[in-house]
Amino acid sequence: TARRAAALGTTVFTELTELAQRTGAINLGQGFPDTDGPRAVIDRAREALVTGANQYPPLAGTPALRSAVARQRLRRYGLSYDPADEVVVTTGATEAVTAAVLALCDPGDEIIVFDPCYDAYQASADLAGAVCRRVPLRRGVDRFGLDPADLERAVSPRTRLVLLNTPHNPTGKVFTRDELEAVAGLCRRHDLVAVTDEVYEYLTYDGTRHLSLASLPGMRERTLSVSSAGKTFSLTGWKVGWACGPAALVAAVRSVKQYLTFAGGAPLQDAVAHALDREEAWVERLCGQLQDKRDLLTTGLRRAGIEVIRAEGGYFLQADVSGTGAADAADFCRTLPLRRNVVAIPTSAFSTAGESCRHLVRFAFCKERGLLEKAAQSIAAPP
Amino acid sequence: TARRAAALGTTVFTELTELAQRTGAINLGQGFPDTDGPRAVIDRAREALVTGANQYPPLAGTPALRSAVARQRLRRYGLSYDPADEVVVTTGATEAVTAAVLALCDPGDEIIVFDPCYDAYQASADLAGAVCRRVPLRRGVDRFGLDPADLERAVSPRTRLVLLNTPHNPTGKVFTRDELEAVAGLCRRHDLVAVTDEVYEYLTYDGTRHLSLASLPGMRERTLSVSSAGKTFSLTGWKVGWACGPAALVAAVRSVKQYLTFAGGAPLQDAVAHALDREEAWVERLCGQLQDKRDLLTTGLRRAGIEVIRAEGGYFLQADVSGTGAADAADFCRTLPLRRNVVAIPTSAFSTAGESCRHLVRFAFCKERGLLEKAAQSIAAPP
Ligand SMILES: CSCCC(=O)C(=O)O
Ligand SMILES: CSCCC(=O)C(=O)O
Repeated sequence: TARRAAALGTTVFTELTELAQRTGAINLGQGFPDTDGPRAVIDRAREALVTGANQYPPLAGTPALRSAVARQRLRRYGLSYDPADEVVVTTGATEAVTAAVLALCDPGDEIIVFDPCYDAYQASADLAGAVCRRVPLRRGVDRFGLDPADLERAVSPRTRLVLLNTPHNPTGKVFTRDELEAVAGLCRRHDLVAVTDEVYEYLTYDGTRHLSLASLPGMRERTLSVSSAGKTFSLTGWKVGWACGPAALVAAVRSVKQYLTFAGGAPLQDAVAHALDREEAWVERLCGQLQDKRDLLTTGLRRAGIEVIRAEGGYFLQADVSGTGAADAADFCRTLPLRRNVVAIPTSAFSTAGESCRHLVRFAFCKERGLLEKAAQSIAAPP
Repeated sequence: TARRAAALGTTVFTELTELAQRTGAINLGQGFPDTDGPRAVIDRAREALVTGANQYPPLAGTPALRSAVARQRLRRYGLSYDPADEVVVTTGATEAVTAAVLALCDPGDEIIVFDPCYDAYQASADLAGAVCRRVPLRRGVDRFGLDPADLERAVSPRTRLVLLNTPHNPTGKVFTRDELEAVAGLCRRHDLVAVTDEVYEYLTYDGTRHLSLASLPGMRERTLSVSSAGKTFSLTGWKVGWACGPAALVAAVRSVKQYLTFAGGAPLQDAVAHALDREEAWVERLCGQLQDKRDLLTTGLRRAGIEVIRAEGGYFLQADVSGTGAADAADFCRTLPLRRNVVAIPTSAFSTAGESCRHLVRFAFCKERGLLEKAAQSIAAPP
């Protein structure tokens, strides 16, 4: 095995989903919904399968999907992209991020990420021989914050990229305008490229609004904005994602992605185009449901004496289990499946920061209400 | 842009397919069929879309598809694999090969490939910082041969892998038992891992039989066998592929692939399982049709004074255009779209060997008969 592969291990999601399946426990570990997306979108895909969308799509994605992505960026963020060379379709956001990192980072180059951090970012850096510099997201009273001084400290002459995820997995944080301004300022001052993973762009709660970093002054020309259909339309298994940005950044992604997968999901691409154009109302409803589910789980956990940090967006909330008697979050999660029939992930799995995440557990709340209720009851029950 | 990306460029397939679309020329460049695969398989996928196969499949692929792949390997090659840890599903064969190269090669390691060579192999080596050592496939009277002495000369202390493609793109060669014995002997003597790209495993002509390198003595334990549904079932846009081999090699692929795409094509995977189990008769018929098409195009090209080297398998034949007055194959292909309304690829695009491929052109014959007839007529017509 090559050194770069030895570092990779197995994603915590795979391990814990397998554990959930083996034990029959409720899977609040891996983030995927148990209800599928809009029927009209699925029907488009069914149609495409018989009307001949079964051969290689263009490397950059079907023209219909690229145009729909461009329209979506314009409508939501006021940003205009040329579908011909400023949009590329990928096999989920994962491929977009990994291709970007491989395309933009030489060995030894540095990438600024935030800690805790979605595990694939570290892995994509490992694949490229690049180094992640982690900026802590600091736990405040009711949300995770960003200290601009921490940002500045993470820069070095080798810094190439800032890899930003908002709404953020695993903290549930949605970066505020001020926080994004700080990131944008850093990028402009040090001439850095930003890669933004915005797969939860539609999933925000309590009126919180998601901002796309590219829409800040001077950022359109240095930002690759990544998103996907999986979370927005509850179709995580389709793995249809995309990246938008200036032509040079998109060309860089395309050049690597042609040898990671070339292309994929031919019969699904135009269905996603339809979804982007026509299903915003469906997503609105999804958002309301997710907010209710977040509240349901929050209430249940609090009843069990577990502190919860409000999720502003995404699929996950953070719970502090220091009041439960468990030694730490890893310990709590280890015994959870057998004792409580629930799977959750210690936030330390996403962090190298040690102490600050020691008692935090990530719970997915993108699951059926009945399951969330059962999970909360089970956790609250006497031992 | 990182150095590794700068090397990659744009696949010749994308360039030429775009040229074909722009000029309206008949596309005998990129290898994809213009008729879709078995209706029963497509119907399975349609079914899966409504019965809920829309969320993340397991990282390694659905249990049904992994079992079907194991059954196929046993039935066709007498090789048995444990679906639990000796089979992994990928986003097409491309992802399997690239993940294998990234997982198994450190920078500076060497990979033995054959020349001419499918372009993605060189690219995957570039991504890994590995070096390709090319063993020439030598043009004989009516087929491309392999000289065992050339093989031995390509080995060095840094050699890690042999990356073998049979049936072979772009030459149409199917490696014989003797040739495979030579490759196997090399692997055993030098303790090399073999990665075999067998995406055309079913598509052989004139009674030629495809052998899987893993079935040779001592090779099961050192071979990662890669294939996919695209070519076998005329569904190139689905990008459902797989790799089988000893658990350690499969784990290596899995560890990298989880960060290239994680997983994909959820609603398509079980349809492919069905295809592997039940559609061999359909593939038999496809084979007969492809052989006829090969003959049709061969006859047409010969009528135009172009020498053709018999394709033993796959989608492509090799034509020698030295009798046409063109300076070389690149020149021939450059003027072909406008003068003859046909797109084809100079074999030199797959080669670093210079002279030996200079007059060779790769034509895809996996297209409708009417198109092949028109293309041949147009090429044979007076200037
Ligand atoms: C690609 S599997 C991981 C799903 C996910 O986004 C998460 O659980 O964080
Ligand atoms: C992935 S596009 C290339 C298709 C193909 O296999 C070929 O034309 O050689």
